[in-house]
Amino acid sequence: MATLQAIKYSRGKLLVLDQLRLPHEHHYDEVSTAEEAFDCIRSMRVRGAPAIAIVAALAHAVELHNGSCTATTPEDTIAYIESRLDFLKESRPTAVDLSNAIALLKLAARAAKLEGLAHPEAKEAILNSYIEAAENILAKDLENNTSIGSFGAAWLQQQFDASPDRRISVLTHCNTGSLATSGHGTALGIIRTLHARGLLRHAYCTETRPYNQGSRLTSFELVFEGIPATLVTDSMAGALFAQHRERMNIGAVIVGADRVVRNGDTANKIGTYALAVLARHHGIKFVVAAPTTSIDLDTETGAGIKIEERKPEELTQISGAVVNADGSIDPSRTARVAIADQRIAVWNPAFDVTPHALIDAIVTERGTVVKGADGRFDFSQVLPERWRW
Amino acid sequence: MATLQAIKYSRGKLLVLDQLRLPHEHHYDEVSTAEEAFDCIRSMRVRGAPAIAIVAALAHAVELHNGSCTATTPEDTIAYIESRLDFLKESRPTAVDLSNAIALLKLAARAAKLEGLAHPEAKEAILNSYIEAAENILAKDLENNTSIGSFGAAWLQQQFDASPDRRISVLTHCNTGSLATSGHGTALGIIRTLHARGLLRHAYCTETRPYNQGSRLTSFELVFEGIPATLVTDSMAGALFAQHRERMNIGAVIVGADRVVRNGDTANKIGTYALAVLARHHGIKFVVAAPTTSIDLDTETGAGIKIEERKPEELTQISGAVVNADGSIDPSRTARVAIADQRIAVWNPAFDVTPHALIDAIVTERGTVVKGADGRFDFSQVLPERWRW
Repeated sequence: MATLQAIKYSRGKLLVLDQLRLPHEHHYDEVSTAEEAFDCIRSMRVRGAPAIAIVAALAHAVELHNGSCTATTPEDTIAYIESRLDFLKESRPTAVDLSNAIALLKLAARAAKLEGLAHPEAKEAILNSYIEAAENILAKDLENNTSIGSFGAAWLQQQFDASPDRRISVLTHCNTGSLATSGHGTALGIIRTLHARGLLRHAYCTETRPYNQGSRLTSFELVFEGIPATLVTDSMAGALFAQHRERMNIGAVIVGADRVVRNGDTANKIGTYALAVLARHHGIKFVVAAPTTSIDLDTETGAGIKIEERKPEELTQISGAVVNADGSIDPSRTARVAIADQRIAVWNPAFDVTPHALIDAIVTERGTVVKGADGRFDFSQVLPERWRW
Repeated sequence: MATLQAIKYSRGKLLVLDQLRLPHEHHYDEVSTAEEAFDCIRSMRVRGAPAIAIVAALAHAVELHNGSCTATTPEDTIAYIESRLDFLKESRPTAVDLSNAIALLKLAARAAKLEGLAHPEAKEAILNSYIEAAENILAKDLENNTSIGSFGAAWLQQQFDASPDRRISVLTHCNTGSLATSGHGTALGIIRTLHARGLLRHAYCTETRPYNQGSRLTSFELVFEGIPATLVTDSMAGALFAQHRERMNIGAVIVGADRVVRNGDTANKIGTYALAVLARHHGIKFVVAAPTTSIDLDTETGAGIKIEERKPEELTQISGAVVNADGSIDPSRTARVAIADQRIAVWNPAFDVTPHALIDAIVTERGTVVKGADGRFDFSQVLPERWRW
């Protein structure tokens, strides 16, 4: 299956899809230095927590591979690597995935086995230890997403195995696909796997106001891979379920998660909660795709999640490529337009919390968790210990 | 109360607010002939079924008052009026309100009492009969909206009279305000009346994708009249109810109606149905404001309502006033931008159907209708006979 890749990597070479030019242009930037990675992350050409961490890790691997480190002692080599990683961390200081990855990469550099090695072999060993750890982050993320896809598709298949038509239609929200990760995606990864296994009838994606990740990015991914798909506004999901659930066999809403807390309450992109209420009202399964790194056992319930509120202009203005009078689009010419009264007060929370009561399954890379007889999620089966990369 | 007027009329003079320039500019066009009215309607400078009918009726009244009719016999006078009205009908051939108004105006011209009158008194009598009928359409629409506002506010006041805080917050969808009618509005008319009576705590309006009537028009009306109000995306209504229902005493969702059928099922702007499900889930009243002209007793249930599907570009592209690099807005410079992958399939229904089970009250200009013990709406109390203007 030709799958969309936001990050293309082979040792010594890293290509990153410029997401600012999507969906109108499909262009890769070569990213060969920490400075180029910093700029790529800061300018939002790459987005999505896993993807940002991977680009930072691999860009430094590429420059090391290409001889950027001029140190001559093991101590100086490690100091060089650490200074470059500290620099990269500043590209998005609040990103947890990025700082976790950087902590792990520093450990990897220091963990190189140097016994009996002198220069330049000792330096080489440190560089190799770093490069392999960086490549492992990429491989591990892809592996995790593929596992989420498999577990999610298997669970859904089980729910609909007895139906006359085993192929279900699903709806997803926001972008949780290849563009936000090393590839395949989380919620969209389940949809990819359903499609690959012949179990998908149709995918619906919401535009996901106010930032339109659904109409800009998820639509692009679905079109790119030829998955049968339809875009709707967020406000149409209810009418879609009411009118087309039976005819299209709409079986599930599948979304990602910013954070899943101990009781299963889930924070995700604004609009997720309303979809969960609508899914429940229509007897449609509500499935959350969440790598175990998103599970936060330190927070008991969704009430403990602080919700970030963003600026009004995200609702009252919008940017896009200019549509010419003849209907053609010039991706290089963009404009920002006002689409609301600029004086109105705006409430713009970045995400909302879906209570665990409305969630049927939480799919991780280690398996699918459903509620027990007590109506609560128990993550011990997928979290034998606290897992980090 | 300084209330927003889309239509300003005094005998011999008609001013119409240019809604294409909203919300950035507040400009009235003088409309003095049928040709100017035709252009105003066709170019969408005026919108909303009642407003269109009123502008057509009054523009012809203005030209008659200003001496446009050169006929010298009663027959020729009537023929002139009818030809002008037939011309105006073509400005929006599918608008039921417009064709009903035109039929009524033709009857009014023919109903002039001409006994014992010769030229020019007979002609004057016909012109006066027309002009008074046209002015009556404006007055009657405004009276109906004011009645809807009163009945709706009174019903809501009754529901929350025992609450610690009698002031409720409400959410509305789309634009049902002064801009679509002679003034005051229907659903927004209830909100205006609540505000005027000190019963409104806060109004929330959804942006109402894909055509953004909420963010462009309702926001403008709320700001214009100083009603405390906040704009949210359609996807935020659920989270708003979950997080702020208690703190803000959110008591009702109030919407308009394109059509109410015999059992109370209601067709309205896409997104209304999802709001009804969310309101029910949160114990919030769901109120439909509908003049009796919207009640269609010939259709038994919502299943009999055909739903118009509109073009994909309404979702994938959007127009607005250009925002300059310094954040300033030039209302005279507009651009159309692409905000989605242009290749994705789109489902774009113009409205959806809310089943009567989810509706708590239907407010007409003749009173508020609630469900009987059998769970059905009975409109006989407000529809003693089939009522048309």
